[in-house]
Amino acid sequence: MKLTLGELAQKSGATLSRGSAELAVEGISSLAEAGVQHLAPFTDATYLPQLKVTKAGAILCKTQELAADAPAGAALLIAADPEITLIKILGLLYPEPTESAGVDPKAVVEPNVEIGANAYIGPFAVVRSGSKIGRGCTIHAHSFVGRNCVLGDGTVLHARATLYDGVQLGQRVIVHSGAVLGADGFGYKFRGGKHVKVPQVGNVTIGDDVEIGANTCIDRAALGSTRVGMGSKIDNLVQIGHNNVVGNHCILCGQVALAGSCELEDYVVLGGNVGVADHIKMGKGSRAGAKSGIGKDVPPGAEMFGMYAVERRAAFKQLVAYNRLPELVERMRKLEAKVKALGGTTE
Amino acid sequence: MKLTLGELAQKSGATLSRGSAELAVEGISSLAEAGVQHLAPFTDATYLPQLKVTKAGAILCKTQELAADAPAGAALLIAADPEITLIKILGLLYPEPTESAGVDPKAVVEPNVEIGANAYIGPFAVVRSGSKIGRGCTIHAHSFVGRNCVLGDGTVLHARATLYDGVQLGQRVIVHSGAVLGADGFGYKFRGGKHVKVPQVGNVTIGDDVEIGANTCIDRAALGSTRVGMGSKIDNLVQIGHNNVVGNHCILCGQVALAGSCELEDYVVLGGNVGVADHIKMGKGSRAGAKSGIGKDVPPGAEMFGMYAVERRAAFKQLVAYNRLPELVERMRKLEAKVKALGGTTE
Amino acid sequence: MKLTLGELAQKSGATLSRGSAELAVEGISSLAEAGVQHLAPFTDATYLPQLKVTKAGAILCKTQELAADAPAGAALLIAADPEITLIKILGLLYPEPTESAGVDPKAVVEPNVEIGANAYIGPFAVVRSGSKIGRGCTIHAHSFVGRNCVLGDGTVLHARATLYDGVQLGQRVIVHSGAVLGADGFGYKFRGGKHVKVPQVGNVTIGDDVEIGANTCIDRAALGSTRVGMGSKIDNLVQIGHNNVVGNHCILCGQVALAGSCELEDYVVLGGNVGVADHIKMGKGSRAGAKSGIGKDVPPGAEMFGMYAVERRAAFKQLVAYNRLPELVERMRKLEAKVKALGGTTE
Repeated sequence: MKLTLGELAQKSGATLSRGSAELAVEGISSLAEAGVQHLAPFTDATYLPQLKVTKAGAILCKTQELAADAPAGAALLIAADPEITLIKILGLLYPEPTESAGVDPKAVVEPNVEIGANAYIGPFAVVRSGSKIGRGCTIHAHSFVGRNCVLGDGTVLHARATLYDGVQLGQRVIVHSGAVLGADGFGYKFRGGKHVKVPQVGNVTIGDDVEIGANTCIDRAALGSTRVGMGSKIDNLVQIGHNNVVGNHCILCGQVALAGSCELEDYVVLGGNVGVADHIKMGKGSRAGAKSGIGKDVPPGAEMFGMYAVERRAAFKQLVAYNRLPELVERMRKLEAKVKALGGTTE
Repeated sequence: MKLTLGELAQKSGATLSRGSAELAVEGISSLAEAGVQHLAPFTDATYLPQLKVTKAGAILCKTQELAADAPAGAALLIAADPEITLIKILGLLYPEPTESAGVDPKAVVEPNVEIGANAYIGPFAVVRSGSKIGRGCTIHAHSFVGRNCVLGDGTVLHARATLYDGVQLGQRVIVHSGAVLGADGFGYKFRGGKHVKVPQVGNVTIGDDVEIGANTCIDRAALGSTRVGMGSKIDNLVQIGHNNVVGNHCILCGQVALAGSCELEDYVVLGGNVGVADHIKMGKGSRAGAKSGIGKDVPPGAEMFGMYAVERRAAFKQLVAYNRLPELVERMRKLEAKVKALGGTTE
Repeated sequence: MKLTLGELAQKSGATLSRGSAELAVEGISSLAEAGVQHLAPFTDATYLPQLKVTKAGAILCKTQELAADAPAGAALLIAADPEITLIKILGLLYPEPTESAGVDPKAVVEPNVEIGANAYIGPFAVVRSGSKIGRGCTIHAHSFVGRNCVLGDGTVLHARATLYDGVQLGQRVIVHSGAVLGADGFGYKFRGGKHVKVPQVGNVTIGDDVEIGANTCIDRAALGSTRVGMGSKIDNLVQIGHNNVVGNHCILCGQVALAGSCELEDYVVLGGNVGVADHIKMGKGSRAGAKSGIGKDVPPGAEMFGMYAVERRAAFKQLVAYNRLPELVERMRKLEAKVKALGGTTE
């Protein structure tokens, strides 16, 4: 999409403080890579050197003063919150492709399915009986929606998303390709030398505005529901076992794993590949650094780090000491020798 | 499904020791969440407070004595092994939905495929030539069965399970959505600055009663077979590289990875995100805690823990010392000062 | 496929130094498991005991001298680089099954798609408008190719590979089942208590001869491209976040994760489950051991290890000291007692 700087300013609520409203903008680019047809954001002072020499036709910045070092020929677009304005402009310049409403003749929709207005169901998608597809939903090719699922209005299943029976999705949920919601939790009882499967009869319930990454797995509960609260964002290849409850507005980065029956309160942030053991409770706004293993409850607001995670500052002190551990061993050896020389008792 | 307490007792082999056999039970719930229409299990003394105030219509317990503190109005179902009885009752109250036998007209079954009696093949499933589908198999929508595969009787492929050519599954195997069996092992030779692919020409062989989680990957062998023994249970997002041999009745939790050519004897248990290096042998019944890295052979029965795992008790002693490492450094500093004050030799 | 030893020698460039050129070879096997119908490679002196008693009909070896201990009845095939010769022979004895060129009538190919000569598109595959499929490409069943994708000549998508819009693949790329290329990067801005999605409008670009494992995810860039250079090999369940740039001929083992905007120069090797934090640069030929966490830039050629990785030799010295840490604590306790006995100042 090509828009003029004037149109972008108007539609995004930004102010054109310098340059021509008629300038055509074809895309967003970084200061370093932009050409005259690009708008480049300047939101981080570390990029000042790039600002000075950018070839961008226009620069998006918080104030005219901050952009004082920009080339004189560059237009300036000013916005109080340039990161959010950038999001708006990205939406204007790169509109998401939309699908024509309707059910593709190559999809399978079983009887007793409700489909809301303006929903799209792509080729080779399967929607089983008893499911309700909200208004304006987009169900891409190869997606599978089991029996008695509910998709809120505006929800998107990318190609090959899979919902087992009974999965409930809120409004505007985005499920990326290959994600599997509602597979059986991992539960067995050991009897007579064998693992006897415990039937997993609960479901998965996802709040509004949740995004679920590619190839992520969220298992159904043994009983009741595995839950993810509204506004939470889950990256790729994440494992959420049965009966976990993830609060609202949490962030789970790639390869996170929640074992089972954990409770994450609102605004918890887990870095990449963090693992949380069974039945752990993490308080509101608590965080764990990448690769941490959470083996005990975490109080609200705490920041954790480590394979057997402790509070972050303590963890880094330990790590500093650990990195000098061979040196400490050597100091010990020398000190023992000195003490011996001083006539310390022999053992 | 709704059943009376009398029916549940009879079909599960439990004894109704108190209350009406006519009571209708609509589901299982926890003591805390149950209503009068629910049966609630009491199998763990830590839930005694919940037992005392439960609203469950009926309680499942090992003996009447153990349930002495239950509300007087609650019926009591007594079973020698209440966890196993609960599994039976779950199967009665929540029967798994079954599919009508037959090949969906929207499936593709190539010539020269044997399909056993009462098998189901769903829409958009593909079964390639030379494959044998056992009696009563369920192959859900979008599953892909390559050439010359074998599925034992009663095996289930959930939506989007994928078998490359030559995969052999035993009886009553369950493969969850998105699992990929038989992709090429990761094998190259480095020559002339390039990685030259070694053709992977082996296969994958899975024993009876194995369950394989969503989006798990089991690669074909370079030569011969990558094997998983009967009764082993594999969770989601597990990586099993080429030529690994997993014994019988093993447990591999979510995100476990076996590099290649490892041998796990029977009853090995690997916690979440455990990694096992190439060519490692783990003895019968050995275990590794979550996130451990197994870099050397493990004797039978050993319990291991740590990023470079050692025996569990040693690992936890090390961890305790590690958590006090900054303190140890400080003790060292003070002791050095004292020794210096005592006239220790200067360095 | 069955070939004579003479045919194998001729087609692979090896020399038959002993035995009959008429001997029929039906397959490759290890020295231990081979029968008279097999060729067994002997490329590693640790297998000398197996060499002495092998039942293989023929042995592949670097020189006749090295195979001096082989049974007298075994034929000998000699090759200067037996590992590479073995790759050739594997290709001869186990030719990959090929598909008949053409578009399966059950595939969906949207208008405005270019399909090169001899390409195959399997049942239930979807290729969206604007995409170009190179000559001799193989697109297996259930694969999904979004809009405006490019597949170079000879590229293979295994069953259920998924490309979002705009993904560019070089020549002879192999994408295994369940891999997802081009899903949205994980980018949000936090405002008013919510995570606001940053539109991800870049793409994914993959060089020639790259192999991508099953269920691996490579996200599209926020702006610009997420890139993987030619000849790089990526195992299963790997996570490559937005805007990462992977150089040429890199090796990423199973469950590796690159957070975002990392740069891996050529020939970087990452062991299983290695994680690399945002914006990290790893120099040419650098390496990281399994499960390492890379939290700062890595110079060319460096080998790293550890959860918060340091140079490998330092890491192992630390690890040795760590494993003796409880002993060090005990030495400290004793030394403190001795110093006290010597009359050290009290605290």
